[in-house]
Amino acid sequence: MDIFQTLESDVRSYCRGWPATFDRAVGSRLYDESGRAYLDFFAGAGVLNYGHNNPVLKRALIEYLERDGITHSLDMNTVAKRDFLQALRDLVLRPRNLDYKVMFPGPAGANAVEAALKLACKVTGRHSVVSFTNGFHGMTLGALAVTGNSVKRAGAGVPLAHTAPMPYDGYLANSPDFELLTKLLDDRGSGLDLPAAFIVETVQGEGGLNTARIEWLQELAELCRRRDILLIVDDVQMGCGRTGPFFSFEIAGLRPDIVCLSKAIGGYGLPLALTLFRPELDIWTPGEHNGTFRGINPAFVAAAEALRTYWRDDNLEKSTVAKGEQAERVLADVAAAHPGIPMQVRGRGLARGLALPSGDLAERVCRNAFERGLLLETSGPEGEVVKLLPPLTVTDDELDEGLSLLEESVKEASR
Amino acid sequence: MDIFQTLESDVRSYCRGWPATFDRAVGSRLYDESGRAYLDFFAGAGVLNYGHNNPVLKRALIEYLERDGITHSLDMNTVAKRDFLQALRDLVLRPRNLDYKVMFPGPAGANAVEAALKLACKVTGRHSVVSFTNGFHGMTLGALAVTGNSVKRAGAGVPLAHTAPMPYDGYLANSPDFELLTKLLDDRGSGLDLPAAFIVETVQGEGGLNTARIEWLQELAELCRRRDILLIVDDVQMGCGRTGPFFSFEIAGLRPDIVCLSKAIGGYGLPLALTLFRPELDIWTPGEHNGTFRGINPAFVAAAEALRTYWRDDNLEKSTVAKGEQAERVLADVAAAHPGIPMQVRGRGLARGLALPSGDLAERVCRNAFERGLLLETSGPEGEVVKLLPPLTVTDDELDEGLSLLEESVKEASR
Amino acid sequence: MDIFQTLESDVRSYCRGWPATFDRAVGSRLYDESGRAYLDFFAGAGVLNYGHNNPVLKRALIEYLERDGITHSLDMNTVAKRDFLQALRDLVLRPRNLDYKVMFPGPAGANAVEAALKLACKVTGRHSVVSFTNGFHGMTLGALAVTGNSVKRAGAGVPLAHTAPMPYDGYLANSPDFELLTKLLDDRGSGLDLPAAFIVETVQGEGGLNTARIEWLQELAELCRRRDILLIVDDVQMGCGRTGPFFSFEIAGLRPDIVCLSKAIGGYGLPLALTLFRPELDIWTPGEHNGTFRGINPAFVAAAEALRTYWRDDNLEKSTVAKGEQAERVLADVAAAHPGIPMQVRGRGLARGLALPSGDLAERVCRNAFERGLLLETSGPEGEVVKLLPPLTVTDDELDEGLSLLEESVKEASR
Amino acid sequence: MDIFQTLESDVRSYCRGWPATFDRAVGSRLYDESGRAYLDFFAGAGVLNYGHNNPVLKRALIEYLERDGITHSLDMNTVAKRDFLQALRDLVLRPRNLDYKVMFPGPAGANAVEAALKLACKVTGRHSVVSFTNGFHGMTLGALAVTGNSVKRAGAGVPLAHTAPMPYDGYLANSPDFELLTKLLDDRGSGLDLPAAFIVETVQGEGGLNTARIEWLQELAELCRRRDILLIVDDVQMGCGRTGPFFSFEIAGLRPDIVCLSKAIGGYGLPLALTLFRPELDIWTPGEHNGTFRGINPAFVAAAEALRTYWRDDNLEKSTVAKGEQAERVLADVAAAHPGIPMQVRGRGLARGLALPSGDLAERVCRNAFERGLLLETSGPEGEVVKLLPPLTVTDDELDEGLSLLEESVKEASR
Repeated sequence: MDIFQTLESDVRSYCRGWPATFDRAVGSRLYDESGRAYLDFFAGAGVLNYGHNNPVLKRALIEYLERDGITHSLDMNTVAKRDFLQALRDLVLRPRNLDYKVMFPGPAGANAVEAALKLACKVTGRHSVVSFTNGFHGMTLGALAVTGNSVKRAGAGVPLAHTAPMPYDGYLANSPDFELLTKLLDDRGSGLDLPAAFIVETVQGEGGLNTARIEWLQELAELCRRRDILLIVDDVQMGCGRTGPFFSFEIAGLRPDIVCLSKAIGGYGLPLALTLFRPELDIWTPGEHNGTFRGINPAFVAAAEALRTYWRDDNLEKSTVAKGEQAERVLADVAAAHPGIPMQVRGRGLARGLALPSGDLAERVCRNAFERGLLLETSGPEGEVVKLLPPLTVTDDELDEGLSLLEESVKEASR
Repeated sequence: MDIFQTLESDVRSYCRGWPATFDRAVGSRLYDESGRAYLDFFAGAGVLNYGHNNPVLKRALIEYLERDGITHSLDMNTVAKRDFLQALRDLVLRPRNLDYKVMFPGPAGANAVEAALKLACKVTGRHSVVSFTNGFHGMTLGALAVTGNSVKRAGAGVPLAHTAPMPYDGYLANSPDFELLTKLLDDRGSGLDLPAAFIVETVQGEGGLNTARIEWLQELAELCRRRDILLIVDDVQMGCGRTGPFFSFEIAGLRPDIVCLSKAIGGYGLPLALTLFRPELDIWTPGEHNGTFRGINPAFVAAAEALRTYWRDDNLEKSTVAKGEQAERVLADVAAAHPGIPMQVRGRGLARGLALPSGDLAERVCRNAFERGLLLETSGPEGEVVKLLPPLTVTDDELDEGLSLLEESVKEASR
Repeated sequence: MDIFQTLESDVRSYCRGWPATFDRAVGSRLYDESGRAYLDFFAGAGVLNYGHNNPVLKRALIEYLERDGITHSLDMNTVAKRDFLQALRDLVLRPRNLDYKVMFPGPAGANAVEAALKLACKVTGRHSVVSFTNGFHGMTLGALAVTGNSVKRAGAGVPLAHTAPMPYDGYLANSPDFELLTKLLDDRGSGLDLPAAFIVETVQGEGGLNTARIEWLQELAELCRRRDILLIVDDVQMGCGRTGPFFSFEIAGLRPDIVCLSKAIGGYGLPLALTLFRPELDIWTPGEHNGTFRGINPAFVAAAEALRTYWRDDNLEKSTVAKGEQAERVLADVAAAHPGIPMQVRGRGLARGLALPSGDLAERVCRNAFERGLLLETSGPEGEVVKLLPPLTVTDDELDEGLSLLEESVKEASR
Repeated sequence: MDIFQTLESDVRSYCRGWPATFDRAVGSRLYDESGRAYLDFFAGAGVLNYGHNNPVLKRALIEYLERDGITHSLDMNTVAKRDFLQALRDLVLRPRNLDYKVMFPGPAGANAVEAALKLACKVTGRHSVVSFTNGFHGMTLGALAVTGNSVKRAGAGVPLAHTAPMPYDGYLANSPDFELLTKLLDDRGSGLDLPAAFIVETVQGEGGLNTARIEWLQELAELCRRRDILLIVDDVQMGCGRTGPFFSFEIAGLRPDIVCLSKAIGGYGLPLALTLFRPELDIWTPGEHNGTFRGINPAFVAAAEALRTYWRDDNLEKSTVAKGEQAERVLADVAAAHPGIPMQVRGRGLARGLALPSGDLAERVCRNAFERGLLLETSGPEGEVVKLLPPLTVTDDELDEGLSLLEESVKEASR
């Protein structure tokens, strides 16, 4: 038995589906310690949008370390943080006419969510937040309360309260959009307390690549606006260009009150998280929310470099959309090639899913893919959705290669 | 107005007390962008026990980056993680006869605490955890519930429940140790529900350097043992040698059921957190607790190198104890030099505090120190305790220099 | 200003709509202190199913008091309690093949509900109960948590948790029955924790006389059975013959796991409440739930006499159904007579409602009725439903008289 | 097996200690169905301060029933309610210079407590209430949260939150009064959220006759006043003259913000409960808290008659004090007569307790007493306190008789 089995807690999971010990990684490829290469359609669960050890970011990062740039600074002012803030303002916020304040809530997406929930309750004086079926927002107690997954929720050890789950787009086949939510909010006898906020993902990565339509998102935003409820978009996984535009909600023309960013924002895989919000909501007192790992300057350096490299123009956005369409086409072909097995193609941009009839079948597909050298994970409540999340920098050849391997993996699993 | 003021949320705080923009840092010194040097008696709130950009760790880190070692891997197996686990086992756990399982709960201390609380409730089937007055455990909703600070608690936006605060060592002048707690637990009519666990710091860093005596800690552990309550030591700030030994509870001979580590464990300021627990408690199902930023391999690399460099023998432990005594002597002299102002010297090892009569006075001391080029923060419920947390690698000269600057700062503030 | 205004809290409400000081009452009539008579279509909010000061019950009650029968006995055994239990068993439970255990949870319906919720959580080890939109179950903190009304909920002063409201029958126009609930329960990612129980009224008295169809109730029961979720029917207002049969759920052939009774069970207006449940659920330890006012023997005496008088045969059930149909016909005529004002006739048995377009109009109708000597209250989330709840012992003439007065009141209000 | 065993839930408890079936009761005596008499030192758990079926109240009650006075009226105005309010104002409130508003929160003490807690949270905007060790306030979810007893708490089925238990007078042998509470409130890092209110009993009836000293109560009131925390006195068991004066807090000169009354206020054993509060706190909106059983006019009639009979002068108060001293003397003699068994005499007025070393011994004493024809219950966290709660109308001879029987019962149990 190796040390992972003897020493590490049984809670570990990815290592079970991918029984290799990884060592190096470049671009869209990982290499295990025997040198075997794996094509990565997982991308660190959406962290590695610019690929592994992206050479441009790597150069900036090593230079920063070499010159003894400050590494850890909490919320002190630093040159690297200023540089990041400027890049964020000039390349992301201003071009989109967003005047958000920026909060560094801690190192991870769950911190961005916890800060968003706290702020929403604090601003409104209300005590609950509406989340959506199959939403996923994190593992800390506040974030877990708005997360749907029953296994994760069971891990809480205490009852999770102060929240209510509502049907996500498409959840109810026969019900007009927001029929239930509107009725519950309009009805003074519904039992749904007026919420501080709604928290939503535009595409539910962990929930199974469920994809909200543009008009559903717009109607949600309008519903919030009319009722003075805050709208929080959790763009931790779908932001930073995963679906095409920098923010996943741009295609719907939304201007959420609060936005959560993390994962790919750091550029190189180093922890970074942001909570963005309308300036009027900035009622925090100094230090009211804090945390140690809020000033990881190497992450600022890589993040700023990534913004300058990839968000100066719309090339990345366009290529992501195009590659996403290519992936969708192939997935549709795969589905069509197995008429006896109901399959559904889901997602947007380079967040794509192939929904299969069972978690068992999806797991077999991923195992087959691993044997062929392709990393793919499952998602969805039963693990029934094969999830494609390649780096946005994947080349056309790599994309085709990966899709071919997926095709074979499905074929073998379907026998 | 600079971009920090215009763009960053008002929640920022350290930058207010230290109005500089930092750029580089080496060992015990930070440099602002004008090149001015600052002696660091803050050490990233306890993250930087081995100093800024420690050259041994830096070399290992850059080498790893240069050779494209995998950066971000969640809980996949990697060569760097194996190396870290081996170092942890061979240099930390085995020499201390500790057979803990190791869980990577997320990037930060709050994640280590949240995982500990979840696990304690899950294992015992109980729903509350006893914390202590002035304890500090983090900002996420679960960790915040066991944190004392009223400003932070007020930020939650929802009532914080499922916990009960008990007097820390020395809190009640006239009461025998644990008189209240023992009575409440023995008394079936007390209203204190049997807790899943106690969570305690051996020295309360944020709470004002309150220091639990060895016998108090031992009595606490014995009380837990007899009543089948789990003991969680939050060693996020006091672990990794801050008080001398690797774990702060070693001097009391404790073997806690669960230990939380973070901050300095990463070695170089990169986020890393561990929850350690007795193997029998490892009832997690795979993935029941997870999170994206759990496999920051550069942190593993620096962490392993730090263990090999500093924990192969007891030199660091001994020097920390000796330097701590030196700091204590000087602080006692400072107190003695101001007989009209009641001052109290607190702490253990290189976690030291000078408790002053008011937060106002302590803030003036820190401001004076900043003007003299020394970084010091306040702690305690009223911010009334000047907190000394130099890197453990601080030289004797640097220590003397810092203590002199502190002495002057107190003198000036006391006029 | 009278003493009610000067001394009693502003929380009082019925006295505002009916500005009289009542003195005597017989059968279906109340008399104020000036001797003016009022026809009562309110019946003590469903307490007075057998009319005011029913002479048969009155005789039994006074005889009991005269002979110094024990008045207050908590849960001691008494002759009067034995007599009541025997009547309940022989006249109610056995004829319906129900083998329920009987718990006396306290004096009021809310106590019956609190005991039901506690027991459901205790038996299942789960922590939440699903309630339905516009359900009303009481004002104590547990009962309030499953109650829909936002004004009442706001009175709690603390966030109400551990519950989730689901659409009642007919709430969603376009959705098949239980589409949402079934999906949420089947979906491991829905965010709806598996509940201990559902709590439901067959007709929602306070919620606006919303009436669940037989097939909806049956589907609900089947859904509970298949998923091992307990079914609690709150029959506090609709039980004791209000809709015809003794239990309102009899028409659907239901056998709920737990049944809450109160209001009319006491017969004469004296507080009494019962929680009935399947014998297998009786896992209470002695005294685990208790309360002072659980043995009001005058209530037992009147209750037993009422069962013997009215439930020895099916005469009352039949007459209630017939009178209910008469009320429905007249209400339908009223609605038809005002084609410009959308009205809806609701309810079952002698629990009837006339839903109007606004609470304002409904209030005017009730005010007009009061001026004509008819007591009627509003219900529903906006107070938009005029509620008819005459004593079951109302004579045909009284019923016709009351319906005529209602007709006039609507006509006047609609002008 | 009788019908109590076959049909009633196992939750029943008093009937287990007193295996008789009671039938009639007069004054201080109960009679079982075989005609055997029992001297009652239990008094319906404090409901029957004026004895069983008190002839003066009985006459008023039967007259009211005979003349068809309205029985059940919710919060409508009635002649009987006006009469009660006038008696309460003229005989209780005005003579004591109390200008409380009167709320009828429901039929039982728990309703009075729930309304008090709701109002305190609503008025202050805070979410927690401080209760005291071994406090007992009721079984509904809100009242249970401030109750100490672990068996009752375990019955809740959900975690009980939003409250914190503090040491009652005498709980900590070595700690100055309120040392802990004052420190926790003064300390911004204590983890105790600023509470809406304290809820306290002056003598803890269920908790074991623990008796707060006058100066402790005064210090508590002063502490509340200075910190703008509301003081709720739960006088459900100790009010209505049980300790001598009408309100138990009169001897300390307290003017609580909110007072809970129930049990004996109804006079004859019929359910009645009041929440009294300072007029400035009356911020309820109409109907925000309601409930069906709030207008039990027979209870108003008996209650008003009881006030007029017993509270027109101070005779009852004086005789209660005198009888209480007699009881105390005899209990002290009993204790002195058993030097080998540590016993403690507790209580005030006619609420008295003999604390024994174990619940087992106390239970034997009560069983012996029952065999001798004396009803006594145990209280305290381990059931270790024999509780004496005779009617206040007990004659001197009955008191002596009961105390003699107790003496014998202790002697026999101590062998």
